[in-house]
Amino acid sequence: MNPLKGACIIGQSGGPTAVINASALGAIQSALQSEQVTRVLGAANGIEGVLKERLFDMAREDPGELELLKYTPASALGSCRYKMAAPSVDDTDYRRLLEIFRKYDVRYFFYNGGNDSMDTCNKISKFMQQSGYECRVIGIPKTIDNDLHGTDHCPGFGSAAKFIATSCMEVHQDLRVYDKGRVTIVEIMGRHAGWLAGSAALATYAGAGPDLVYLPEVPFRMEEFWQDVDRIYRQNGSCMVAVSEGVQYADGRFVAESGDRDVFGHTQLGGLGAMLAESVKRQTGAKVRSIELSLLQRCASHVASKTDIDEAYMAGKAAVEAAVSGQTDKMVAFERITENGIYSCKTKLIGLEEVANVEKLVPREWINARGNGVEQPFIDYVLPLIQGETAMQKECSLPRFAKLRKVPAKPEQR
Amino acid sequence: MNPLKGACIIGQSGGPTAVINASALGAIQSALQSEQVTRVLGAANGIEGVLKERLFDMAREDPGELELLKYTPASALGSCRYKMAAPSVDDTDYRRLLEIFRKYDVRYFFYNGGNDSMDTCNKISKFMQQSGYECRVIGIPKTIDNDLHGTDHCPGFGSAAKFIATSCMEVHQDLRVYDKGRVTIVEIMGRHAGWLAGSAALATYAGAGPDLVYLPEVPFRMEEFWQDVDRIYRQNGSCMVAVSEGVQYADGRFVAESGDRDVFGHTQLGGLGAMLAESVKRQTGAKVRSIELSLLQRCASHVASKTDIDEAYMAGKAAVEAAVSGQTDKMVAFERITENGIYSCKTKLIGLEEVANVEKLVPREWINARGNGVEQPFIDYVLPLIQGETAMQKECSLPRFAKLRKVPAKPEQR
Repeated sequence: MNPLKGACIIGQSGGPTAVINASALGAIQSALQSEQVTRVLGAANGIEGVLKERLFDMAREDPGELELLKYTPASALGSCRYKMAAPSVDDTDYRRLLEIFRKYDVRYFFYNGGNDSMDTCNKISKFMQQSGYECRVIGIPKTIDNDLHGTDHCPGFGSAAKFIATSCMEVHQDLRVYDKGRVTIVEIMGRHAGWLAGSAALATYAGAGPDLVYLPEVPFRMEEFWQDVDRIYRQNGSCMVAVSEGVQYADGRFVAESGDRDVFGHTQLGGLGAMLAESVKRQTGAKVRSIELSLLQRCASHVASKTDIDEAYMAGKAAVEAAVSGQTDKMVAFERITENGIYSCKTKLIGLEEVANVEKLVPREWINARGNGVEQPFIDYVLPLIQGETAMQKECSLPRFAKLRKVPAKPEQR
Repeated sequence: MNPLKGACIIGQSGGPTAVINASALGAIQSALQSEQVTRVLGAANGIEGVLKERLFDMAREDPGELELLKYTPASALGSCRYKMAAPSVDDTDYRRLLEIFRKYDVRYFFYNGGNDSMDTCNKISKFMQQSGYECRVIGIPKTIDNDLHGTDHCPGFGSAAKFIATSCMEVHQDLRVYDKGRVTIVEIMGRHAGWLAGSAALATYAGAGPDLVYLPEVPFRMEEFWQDVDRIYRQNGSCMVAVSEGVQYADGRFVAESGDRDVFGHTQLGGLGAMLAESVKRQTGAKVRSIELSLLQRCASHVASKTDIDEAYMAGKAAVEAAVSGQTDKMVAFERITENGIYSCKTKLIGLEEVANVEKLVPREWINARGNGVEQPFIDYVLPLIQGETAMQKECSLPRFAKLRKVPAKPEQR
C-alpha cells in the first residue's frame, strides 16, 4: 500500500439536502485525523471553487461549529451546478485543476454529489492519471431524489421522505375538518424518479395520507387521473393526491410542460400541482387546493431522519478511509442488510464509471397496476430510512446552524 | 353560586391549528372530572353538528387516545365555517339549538374559534337568556392569525410562528449554496394581520432569514418593493422576502387580487408569491423563486411550540372552570406576565361582546418606518410564544395522531 501523503479537497455539488453537511463532516473529521492527509481544504461552491482557487482551511474551524454541520441543512461550503466539458473536447478546466492540485499538493479529492458529480469525479481522476499526477478520487453519494445507481439508497433521501410523509399526515388531518371535503393535490420533487412522491404513501401506511400517488415511472393518463379523483371524492367526500413534478405522458412529454397548460391559460406560473388542480376543478366541479412542498423537502433538517444523518456521516468517513487505504475512482455506496427483520447498512465501493449518469428508478412492480399508488415492498424499502430523530441543537427553540469561519487556505509552502 | 348541573357541548370552529385539539382536550378532561357536568358531548363540525344533532359521547373515548389530542393537528371533532344569521333576522337556527340543548339537557356550551365564533357564542348565549333557558357559554380563543382582540395572544399562533421561523431559517441556508444567488419570496398566511408574516423575522433574529418582511398593516408600494429587492440583491447576491398574503395597496385593494395580476396573464393560478416573483423577474432580471408555506403553517404539529400546546390546553381547562363557577358570556383570554425578563402567562375572562368581530393588528410602531421589516418589540413579543418542543408521540418515527371512536350520543333520558 502506498502511504500517499498530501492535502485533500472536499467539495459539495448539486442541489443540497438536509444531510449533505453531515457527509462533509464525516469526511472532514476523518481527514483531520488521518496521518496521511496533511491539510483539509474545503472547496467553495464545489468544483467552481477549486477552479477559482477559493479553498478554505478546515483545520481553522472551531471544532464545536464543525460538529453542528451534522444538523445544518444545505451545502455549508457552497455548491455548484457546473458541468465540465469532456477533456477530449476542452481540457482547460482540467489543466487548471491540475495546476491547483499541484499548488496545494492535493492528493485526495472527495466530491459529494449526484449523477453529474460522479461523472465529474470520474473525468478528473482520468485526467490526473493521464497527466501522471497521483491523486485519489472518491465520490460521496448525495441526492434527495434517491436515483443514484449502485447504492441501496442515497444520503438525503431518508430525511426528505420523512418530511414528505410527516407533512402529508399533518395535511391529511387538516383536510378532513370540514363537513364538505375537497380535493388536495400535493406536488412533490423528483424529475425522473418517483422515490420522493412514493414516500408520501408512508403517510397512508402510518395512519392517513394520500389516496392516490403518481410517480414518473408510469405514464400519466389524464383521463384516468380525473376518473380516480372523481371516484374517491364522491366516495369519501374528499381526496388527497400526491404527484411527482416529473410525471410524464406516454410520449415522454412532462405533464407540467405539456400543451394542456396553455388550455387553461397559465404558461408561466404555478407548477404541476396548480395545473392539475385547475383541471380537476373544471372536470369534476370539486373544490381543489394544491400544495407545493417546494424547497422545504430538501432543507427541513428539523425533522431529519437520524438514520439518514448517521449514514451520511458514515459515507463521508468511508470515503476518506477508502482513499487513504489506496482506493481511487470509486463512489461510496450503501448495502442494506436485513437480518431477522432488523435493518442495518454498511458501506461498499463501486466504480465511478458504473454509477455516472445512470438513473435508478422505482421498480415497476413496486407500483400498483393502475399506476396510482405503491405496493408494500416500496414501504418496506423506505420505512427503515426515515427512522430516528435528529439531535439538532437549538437556541431559543430555533435551529442553531453551524457558522463556519471559512478561512482562505494558502498554497502549500515547499 | 348556582351549582348548575347538566351536559356540556364542546365545539371547534374555523380554520384549524396545530393546537386546537389541545384546547379541546383541556376542556374535555376538565369537564369529565367536573361534578356539575353530567355528560361531555363533542359537536361534529362545530355548530353545524349541533344543528344536525351530530354529537359524540366523549366519555366513550379511550383516555389514552384522548391524550394524543394534545399533539394532533387540525380539528379532531371537525370544524365549520357556518355563519348564523342575526336572531332578529332569522331565529330558525337558534330555536333548533334550544331544542337540541333541551333534548340533551345542555347547560354548558364551549366554543373554540376565532372572531366569528365568538360572535356566534355571543348570539347563542343572548338567545338562550331571552328564552329563559339557563346555559353558560364560554368561548375559547383559537387562530394562527393571532388577531383576536382582548387577549395577549391566541393559541395556535405560537406553533405557526415557530414553523414559519424554522422553515425560513432552513430555506435561507438552502438559498445561499450557489455562487449566483437569487430572489426568494415566501408567501405567508394572514389575511388582515401581519403577526405570521412578521414571525418570519424571527429567523433573521436567530441567525439568518428574510431580508425584507411585508405586513398587511402597512400599505404596499410596489415600486418601493422592487427597489428594496433590487438593492439587496445587488448588494448581497441574493434576497429573501417574506410577505403576507394579505398585503394591500393604500386604496385597500389586496395586491394578490389587484389588476397587476392580469398584466402578467395569470388570473387563476399562483398566489401572491408567484405574482410578486414574476414581477420582480421582469423588473430586475434576477432569478426568482416563490414558496408558499400554505396549509403546513397551521398543521405542522411536529414542530409545535410546547408553550403554545400548554397554553392551548390551559385555555380549554379555564373555560370549563369558569363556567362551572358561574361565569357565562365570556371568552378565555391570556395575560402576559414578564418578571425579571421571564415570561409567564395566565388566563383571564373578557366579555364576548368585547371580542366579537374586532381584529387586533400589529402596532405600527412594531414595524419599521419603511414598512419592510419588524422592530425589536415584535421579536420580544413573539419569541416567548414559540419556546419548547412538542412531546408528540411517534410510531415508526412518524406522528401517531389521536384516533377517536366518535360514538354518537343519545338524548338525555329523563
